[in-house]
Amino acid sequence: MPNPLLTLTTDFGSRDAYVGVMKGVILGIVPNASLVDLSHEIPAQAVTIGALVLRSAVEFFPAGTIHLAVVDPGVGSSRLPVAVVTERGFLVGPDNGLLYPSATALGIREVRRLENQAFFRPEVSRTFHGRDIFAPVAAHLAAGVAADELGERVDELQPLILPVARREDAQIIGEVVYVDHFGNLVTNIAAADLAAFPTQALSISIDQVSLPPPVSSYAAVDPGTPLAIAGSWGQLEVAVRNGNAAQYFSAGVGTVVRVSRDSGRD
Amino acid sequence: MPNPLLTLTTDFGSRDAYVGVMKGVILGIVPNASLVDLSHEIPAQAVTIGALVLRSAVEFFPAGTIHLAVVDPGVGSSRLPVAVVTERGFLVGPDNGLLYPSATALGIREVRRLENQAFFRPEVSRTFHGRDIFAPVAAHLAAGVAADELGERVDELQPLILPVARREDAQIIGEVVYVDHFGNLVTNIAAADLAAFPTQALSISIDQVSLPPPVSSYAAVDPGTPLAIAGSWGQLEVAVRNGNAAQYFSAGVGTVVRVSRDSGRD
Amino acid sequence: MPNPLLTLTTDFGSRDAYVGVMKGVILGIVPNASLVDLSHEIPAQAVTIGALVLRSAVEFFPAGTIHLAVVDPGVGSSRLPVAVVTERGFLVGPDNGLLYPSATALGIREVRRLENQAFFRPEVSRTFHGRDIFAPVAAHLAAGVAADELGERVDELQPLILPVARREDAQIIGEVVYVDHFGNLVTNIAAADLAAFPTQALSISIDQVSLPPPVSSYAAVDPGTPLAIAGSWGQLEVAVRNGNAAQYFSAGVGTVVRVSRDSGRD
Repeated sequence: MPNPLLTLTTDFGSRDAYVGVMKGVILGIVPNASLVDLSHEIPAQAVTIGALVLRSAVEFFPAGTIHLAVVDPGVGSSRLPVAVVTERGFLVGPDNGLLYPSATALGIREVRRLENQAFFRPEVSRTFHGRDIFAPVAAHLAAGVAADELGERVDELQPLILPVARREDAQIIGEVVYVDHFGNLVTNIAAADLAAFPTQALSISIDQVSLPPPVSSYAAVDPGTPLAIAGSWGQLEVAVRNGNAAQYFSAGVGTVVRVSRDSGRD
Repeated sequence: MPNPLLTLTTDFGSRDAYVGVMKGVILGIVPNASLVDLSHEIPAQAVTIGALVLRSAVEFFPAGTIHLAVVDPGVGSSRLPVAVVTERGFLVGPDNGLLYPSATALGIREVRRLENQAFFRPEVSRTFHGRDIFAPVAAHLAAGVAADELGERVDELQPLILPVARREDAQIIGEVVYVDHFGNLVTNIAAADLAAFPTQALSISIDQVSLPPPVSSYAAVDPGTPLAIAGSWGQLEVAVRNGNAAQYFSAGVGTVVRVSRDSGRD
Repeated sequence: MPNPLLTLTTDFGSRDAYVGVMKGVILGIVPNASLVDLSHEIPAQAVTIGALVLRSAVEFFPAGTIHLAVVDPGVGSSRLPVAVVTERGFLVGPDNGLLYPSATALGIREVRRLENQAFFRPEVSRTFHGRDIFAPVAAHLAAGVAADELGERVDELQPLILPVARREDAQIIGEVVYVDHFGNLVTNIAAADLAAFPTQALSISIDQVSLPPPVSSYAAVDPGTPLAIAGSWGQLEVAVRNGNAAQYFSAGVGTVVRVSRDSGRD
């Protein structure tokens, strides 16, 4: 049997040992697990950003992977701790929207609330459920515990309300939902939605600036030049070749991006 | 036999390959080891912070774990390289106080100076003992080498002098000893020391500001509100819900925190 | 058989899940692989810095290690994706100079262009070859695929032009090529080139400041004092004990460092 594979996504940062502590708890239960960090640099309590980063990664992991995510402003409140059984593995974390985009992308089979204390650490704090509930439950799932042992079934996962791109006449109006390390602006316009049009027939605008039709690689334009591209998230991205589009456009989450059918051509 | 488990704590940062190099040395000796990073963002040469971060994590790792720690301003001087055999595993690093709080928490069985060069890299630099001495020795321990092969027994581990909270009349006077990624202020007042009092009968003050009695979870107060809480380190913490207490109070390591028995109640 | 060992070096940073995604792809192919991060903090598109960081680490890994490196400003252009078979393992990445110093250090046996799509992800983007080409190819190498299955042999690896220290009369004139996390200034003057001289007979200067002859450890001077030393990279370094030489000297990559034979002695 291959080693069980778990990923970790948190807003814990890398200065303290909080992530390491969760790994210690996991490896105490399932010593042969492989652990992969997705990000621990989610801004503090930023559930939406955590949800998007997790969503950007889950489909690239093998079936059976257990994704543990903790961005948890409601720790100690009435928000539920849950495990989601999906078509391709498991998600474990707080039921605050964090898991929702990944769960729907992977296909939800069932949601369980975490209430069986046999799978928690013996003493559960009210400040660090990552260590005391989520890590040990994820590890027990990795060790082969069945999801129905974790607790009662929950009817619905807490949804995450994300801004949706809309069509208006010959336009798609979307916005930037994520800015990556390179300053690339990831929009909520699905690359697939552009596929209906001949690419050359599209023009893109961000704030007041017009961009040429989407290119097929960063290298299609000169260094320092802005571009639109179907990016690695499967979404339309605005980038600057070998540069930083967030700085170039003074843009960020919420900046409007429009795709227009270029009436002069096609 | 499960994979041996080693943790790493350093002030090496993550830009250079120094941590990766130590891992290469370890995996060259014990290829099936699991490696967990506790932190590599200890401020340069900050032995006390390194000691506290390591101490915050060690008890959450399974018995037999080998904790490798390198914050080593005296590299190349006469400070000893040591391995500590504890009741629950091993600590390996420079004998400069870094290992002391973890060693006493885990229970010291014996301390060995590292002098058997059979367990070092063939060529030992005087600038990078993490790579040339500590990593290979930790790896050999993980591979099953007995501690008494490493070198002579040392009578005492170099202590680390930490500020201790004191009782004065009806007060406990402590101070902030660590500020975490969230800006939570970890004090040196043990949560257990508050247990003697009914929690409602306590009032906390930090500098000139009074806080209500400790709450049981961050979610007990409104976002943006400061609070005192028995935190995940097992110490009294001052936090701001979904905020940053270090910024809120302009506080840091050394800021005084007082716990008073509230004379009006109880 | 021991677990295959792969290292990762990128300019992807740690905020996004890009590195995690590559690891998911790798572990989907070779589940028992050990993965070691060298650095993901290479400045964006900084091929030379990436090449130096990789070079600083490769010789400390066991034979057979697969080093995956992606600093790839030309992704989607005509630059080749390659795998290098060396005397001690493999290098996989873009043929833009990134792999060159490590390849020559480890000893090149042959270079293969990556063109056999059987070892790529089924759908190859033109923006993220790390995920779609380099990670899966590295994983297949780890799983035992022979290099000659990857694609045609390439005659030459793209070289990386690095500044070379030169001798001039009784001087060696070099420069800073890398500044590490501690602010240590790594030069391009090989420590071995100093070995010809009695160390006490050398004087070092950086900009207008003269330093005493190289010392054998940081601890040889008082805290706060600048020093020259044969560093852990095997190169002459300028450092400040328990301080930051880059700040002390306002120095960086390109700052000239001279080694003179001290005529008054020897």
